[in-house]
Amino acid sequence: MSEKARNQRRVLVAVDESEESMYALSWSLKNIVFQNSTDTLILLYVKPPHAVYSPLDATGRMDDPETPGYLFSSDISAAINKYSQEVADCVLEKAKKLCKEVQHVKVETRVENGDPRDVICRMSEKLGADVLVMGSHGYGVVKRAFLGSVSDYCSQNVKCPVLIVKKPKPTVADRQ
Amino acid sequence: MSEKARNQRRVLVAVDESEESMYALSWSLKNIVFQNSTDTLILLYVKPPHAVYSPLDATGRMDDPETPGYLFSSDISAAINKYSQEVADCVLEKAKKLCKEVQHVKVETRVENGDPRDVICRMSEKLGADVLVMGSHGYGVVKRAFLGSVSDYCSQNVKCPVLIVKKPKPTVADRQ
Repeated sequence: MSEKARNQRRVLVAVDESEESMYALSWSLKNIVFQNSTDTLILLYVKPPHAVYSPLDATGRMDDPETPGYLFSSDISAAINKYSQEVADCVLEKAKKLCKEVQHVKVETRVENGDPRDVICRMSEKLGADVLVMGSHGYGVVKRAFLGSVSDYCSQNVKCPVLIVKKPKPTVADRQ
Repeated sequence: MSEKARNQRRVLVAVDESEESMYALSWSLKNIVFQNSTDTLILLYVKPPHAVYSPLDATGRMDDPETPGYLFSSDISAAINKYSQEVADCVLEKAKKLCKEVQHVKVETRVENGDPRDVICRMSEKLGADVLVMGSHGYGVVKRAFLGSVSDYCSQNVKCPVLIVKKPKPTVADRQ
């Protein structure tokens, strides 16, 4: 790799509302992004799909017309979409603030919709990521069963190197 | 992280006889190890266990006395151990040569015996690794079924961040 290429990497960080995700971002800023480089950090937030129905749409779910699901009025649907966008904005603002605090780096943001596993894999390729960084959710059986599988899936299917970062468990000293 | 801590990281790279493993090492030298740092790169080679029997040892396999296994004469057993050590030496020599070529960095080597999954997890903690780097074996169903599971297991069980690096598939241009 030439010196130029070394300093122009595209580091894709998948962020969400979890603490683990922000820890992964912070870790990659300190350990992956080179100082005085022209690396680009791309913050990717994926809004997971929810079953949205219009009362006029009797054919079924938007993403799968054959599958029955909950019926939302258009008001509720709009409220869910608004809330979902607000969460995305909030997460990305927090992530951008963290980037500024830790390391001077060029930051881009992306918000995408869909199954996080598929979207993260697709976007890694589309955005030409040199490395994908993800948090790993180690706490709680339910969270791990779902979110753990996102990092497992991505580490198996993404073509670029994948860095999975765990937030260390607090020690006794930390709790005091 | 202080500037001192930033430059004194312990990067553990699990190496084996595969090309993927050497690619992962090369990638981490270019993308993880900071230039002019005092990072330490630890090369870990794990010799997987094989069923070794002395004709005088009628109780069963060394690692599990209850399990029957192949019977090797002490000559064959010694030959296998010698071959296994030669492979380990050869892999580590190749890895150290690569380190010298790519990046000036302090290098330590370790050879351990056992199930690679358990050994890599245990050594990550014992050696105080700040990050674990592993190759991912993407080619071949059989290789992936066994070796893929090592990186899956480690990414789930190792406490420090885990970087899984895949060797890019050769393009048409590369083959010409």
